[in-house]
Amino acid sequence: MIAQTPPPPYYAVIFTSIRTEIDEGYLEMARLMEELASEQEGFLGLEGAREEIGISVSYWDSLESIRKWKANARHQLAQQKGIASWYSAYRTRICRVERDYAFEKPIDPDTPA
Amino acid sequence: MIAQTPPPPYYAVIFTSIRTEIDEGYLEMARLMEELASEQEGFLGLEGAREEIGISVSYWDSLESIRKWKANARHQLAQQKGIASWYSAYRTRICRVERDYAFEKPIDPDTPA
Repeated sequence: MIAQTPPPPYYAVIFTSIRTEIDEGYLEMARLMEELASEQEGFLGLEGAREEIGISVSYWDSLESIRKWKANARHQLAQQKGIASWYSAYRTRICRVERDYAFEKPIDPDTPA
Repeated sequence: MIAQTPPPPYYAVIFTSIRTEIDEGYLEMARLMEELASEQEGFLGLEGAREEIGISVSYWDSLESIRKWKANARHQLAQQKGIASWYSAYRTRICRVERDYAFEKPIDPDTPA
């Protein structure tokens, strides 16, 4: 799903990663972290996809919410396991979303796009 | 590949999309746009993956470079075709990257991570 974020400004964390061949516990942890992130104060949405690389983008109301999420104890544990086992490389980028625009095709197929 | 961007600040365009079932011309155009983007002034890198949704993130040195790329005539044509055929929905977010940090596993497997 495309995250239904509020009007800018808000914040995005772009997490780009390359996986190792170690799968043990990865999917469970990824799902747990999605769930846990979505319960945090200031969480606005999450988008993700993986092919050759994985990209997941989480959206937040403030840098303070991002800082708290990064420091969350269970998230810290996941980050340590990620470095030890699941990721061969990653890059995290903290961004301020300045502008956004959206397109959605009309549902009625007879309506001109 | 994870984009090897310079130290912040720089800019990111997060393009999140849902495809229609119309494939005609899509892959060719996607490849052409990747190539064309990489030739533009101020281009810093590109990352992409698609599963249920597609996320592609392009990185730029300035908002002006992003504006010029959006206005590029061949890119405009691709955007029009995207709306008419290839995408049922998308969202574009223009961001300023404030901070980033990276992890890369040592190449020697005997080196502790």
